[in-house]
Amino acid sequence: MPDSVDAKNHAVDTSRRHFLRSGVAIGGAALAGGIATTSHAAATETSNLPPNIPKWMKVPGDPMGSQTYGTPSPFEKDVVKNISKNLPQYLSASGRTPLQELDGIITPNGLFYERHHAGVPTIDPTQHRLMLHGLVERPMIFTMDNIRRFPSESHIHFLECSGNPGYKKPYGKTASDLVGLLSCAEWTGVKLKLVLQEAGLRADAKWVVAEGADAAALTRSIPIEKCLDDAMLVYSQNGERLRPQQGYPLRLILLGFEGNMNIKWLRRLHVTAEPTYSREETSKYTDLMPDGTAREFTFYMEAKSIITRPSGGQRLAAKGFHEITGIAWSGRGKISRVDVSVDDGRSWQEAHLQEPILTRALTRFRLPWHWDGKPTVIQSRATDETGYVQPTLAQLLAVRGENYFYHNNAIWPWRIAADGEVSNAANA
Amino acid sequence: MPDSVDAKNHAVDTSRRHFLRSGVAIGGAALAGGIATTSHAAATETSNLPPNIPKWMKVPGDPMGSQTYGTPSPFEKDVVKNISKNLPQYLSASGRTPLQELDGIITPNGLFYERHHAGVPTIDPTQHRLMLHGLVERPMIFTMDNIRRFPSESHIHFLECSGNPGYKKPYGKTASDLVGLLSCAEWTGVKLKLVLQEAGLRADAKWVVAEGADAAALTRSIPIEKCLDDAMLVYSQNGERLRPQQGYPLRLILLGFEGNMNIKWLRRLHVTAEPTYSREETSKYTDLMPDGTAREFTFYMEAKSIITRPSGGQRLAAKGFHEITGIAWSGRGKISRVDVSVDDGRSWQEAHLQEPILTRALTRFRLPWHWDGKPTVIQSRATDETGYVQPTLAQLLAVRGENYFYHNNAIWPWRIAADGEVSNAANA
Repeated sequence: MPDSVDAKNHAVDTSRRHFLRSGVAIGGAALAGGIATTSHAAATETSNLPPNIPKWMKVPGDPMGSQTYGTPSPFEKDVVKNISKNLPQYLSASGRTPLQELDGIITPNGLFYERHHAGVPTIDPTQHRLMLHGLVERPMIFTMDNIRRFPSESHIHFLECSGNPGYKKPYGKTASDLVGLLSCAEWTGVKLKLVLQEAGLRADAKWVVAEGADAAALTRSIPIEKCLDDAMLVYSQNGERLRPQQGYPLRLILLGFEGNMNIKWLRRLHVTAEPTYSREETSKYTDLMPDGTAREFTFYMEAKSIITRPSGGQRLAAKGFHEITGIAWSGRGKISRVDVSVDDGRSWQEAHLQEPILTRALTRFRLPWHWDGKPTVIQSRATDETGYVQPTLAQLLAVRGENYFYHNNAIWPWRIAADGEVSNAANA
Repeated sequence: MPDSVDAKNHAVDTSRRHFLRSGVAIGGAALAGGIATTSHAAATETSNLPPNIPKWMKVPGDPMGSQTYGTPSPFEKDVVKNISKNLPQYLSASGRTPLQELDGIITPNGLFYERHHAGVPTIDPTQHRLMLHGLVERPMIFTMDNIRRFPSESHIHFLECSGNPGYKKPYGKTASDLVGLLSCAEWTGVKLKLVLQEAGLRADAKWVVAEGADAAALTRSIPIEKCLDDAMLVYSQNGERLRPQQGYPLRLILLGFEGNMNIKWLRRLHVTAEPTYSREETSKYTDLMPDGTAREFTFYMEAKSIITRPSGGQRLAAKGFHEITGIAWSGRGKISRVDVSVDDGRSWQEAHLQEPILTRALTRFRLPWHWDGKPTVIQSRATDETGYVQPTLAQLLAVRGENYFYHNNAIWPWRIAADGEVSNAANA
């Protein structure tokens, strides 16, 4: 046991072995009362020291009982969905995931992003039906009990709105403002293929038109190849049943496809020979190109990444060691590599990717960084297993021109000021 | 397009291709109005058919706004933590995860099991401190900001109470009653090893005594080998900060070790030469063996599994195809195999394991099954990567005798009656 009492600030070096610039040391002698004693005389000498016994140890904590469905700590009350104050939020609305507050790759259900075109319906699952008709041998109607009798699968996948951010200029202050229409969950359901086989597809079946049971009857056409590949009818999200905002009691999950195609509150699958050219695949969710044509049925969300810590609205407390961390994803498959620049794009370093690296799931990346205290710009660049590399905004604009709106997967740089303040570099 | 209208019940065969015993077919002609039309004349002919347009499509759904932190559907209000009515629930309390209602491997934070010895403290994270002292070169005190500056990691792991169920007779009706003190989440935090290195371990450092900041000051001794291996100081759970019931703002995660060692509300790490022999490692959480000795410091939760569907309290609606699914886990590493018996243990079939199969995480298993409608008993048996096989209750009792209480990892069989009712076979 150490004999000396050293209650002064203890400067820890910033070599490879030590990560913190400062810590507070206390003498072992101050704890001579032994393991069970929580008082220590040195504890009041600096404000960084703990109270002898915190008040929450002096009284019993909260009981069980009403807490049959848990909620976050009251101290986390500001970690909520990010709802824009500038956009009307009735009927056609969106709430963004606070990505900069989150760790890992799973989005908790309470913070999963939402986007709906006519509000969130409250659907009684015993009354809900899925109709499957059109170019099939046996048109069928399924109850939720029917759907749950099929063989099931679970997969961790991201979902992203194609309008994320939904403008070509990188407005906004935080990672959530920029790309918060993005979340990742473990989905459970049945392969759509099995349900289609139950009904029997006709030879001329080329598309499946999916319709939601919301007041917008949101409708999208899906190529039959996707329906017979990895498309799923999903009823659970991170273990429990879907949240209403994510399509309770049944939704489509089309792995890697833009969010609005993953029809929520799914009530109808119409098997057809041609796409239906619904509003959401003509007037919306298409990309007007410089030559006047519009790209439609683009489906896949391309590789993308963002640094979530440090990111806009945060502040580096001191120079020295900081971990740069963020998320990368691709609708085309696995993320194979993320590079990070800490010198405004002059040089790039390969970040560490957290296992497991799953196809079409968020992938967490990390890079240790020693900040020298000088202003700089940091950014990340994702590469997926197809070899596709996330473009800069300038590269994207060079191809797509000034009229495009959706499918913006450009690199977002963050500016770090001398005082450690982090802001959107494109706003500066 | 089919011309005939067939609104009668449509019997689907139960061959390999078809999974449902019955479906309801409707004629395509009833939908002659086209894709955008939701009315169909045949829809009222049987009660299994949907309303023409459900009421939730006729009015706008709920707006955003107050829903900044989401909650489950009101139709899922009974899917909550399972709190025993027979046990006093103040101070020393527990709430079980409703495993039989869940899919996949992730437990949503609102349903994560909880077990506390003096209630749940409400801790202000800005006031919380972690003290690291004893056989170290530099005793230190860390704020939460300090902790979050270390390099981070995320891992999906299960947590299980060592008293799960906490009695040798398999009482209870549901999977949750039996083994609901079990959940699985993606945890994010810092390797304990890095924090210990910051302080510098002395040569005689052999144990780390961890103390919680609850009114019980729950205290456990951890071998230094574990602390320098994969032990973590964790601040996030499924992306967001820990829930109060899981140790907000900081807890230990000791991968594969019994739940109570994963100290919640962590405030102190005392590095010592010997274990402290606290209440929770002497009077509690030890196993009294037939020879009168008590096994202590057993640490690891051994391989275990349970079928969650069909399971106690559920009912098979009809004979024919059913998927048997459940979860398996081992504190020793990965699950390598799960076998399922559908004939009261006479024969076993290898179940399919859902990818990704992660070390010390829940692993979802599935087996397609054709129920012939006769009474039977079903059960699952896990094997982990060390080759260890989950025992029967008789095998466990033969080794441990009648005095043991904790660490019950026996196989739990479910009885299926002729009417499809599922019950605990050991209660019958």
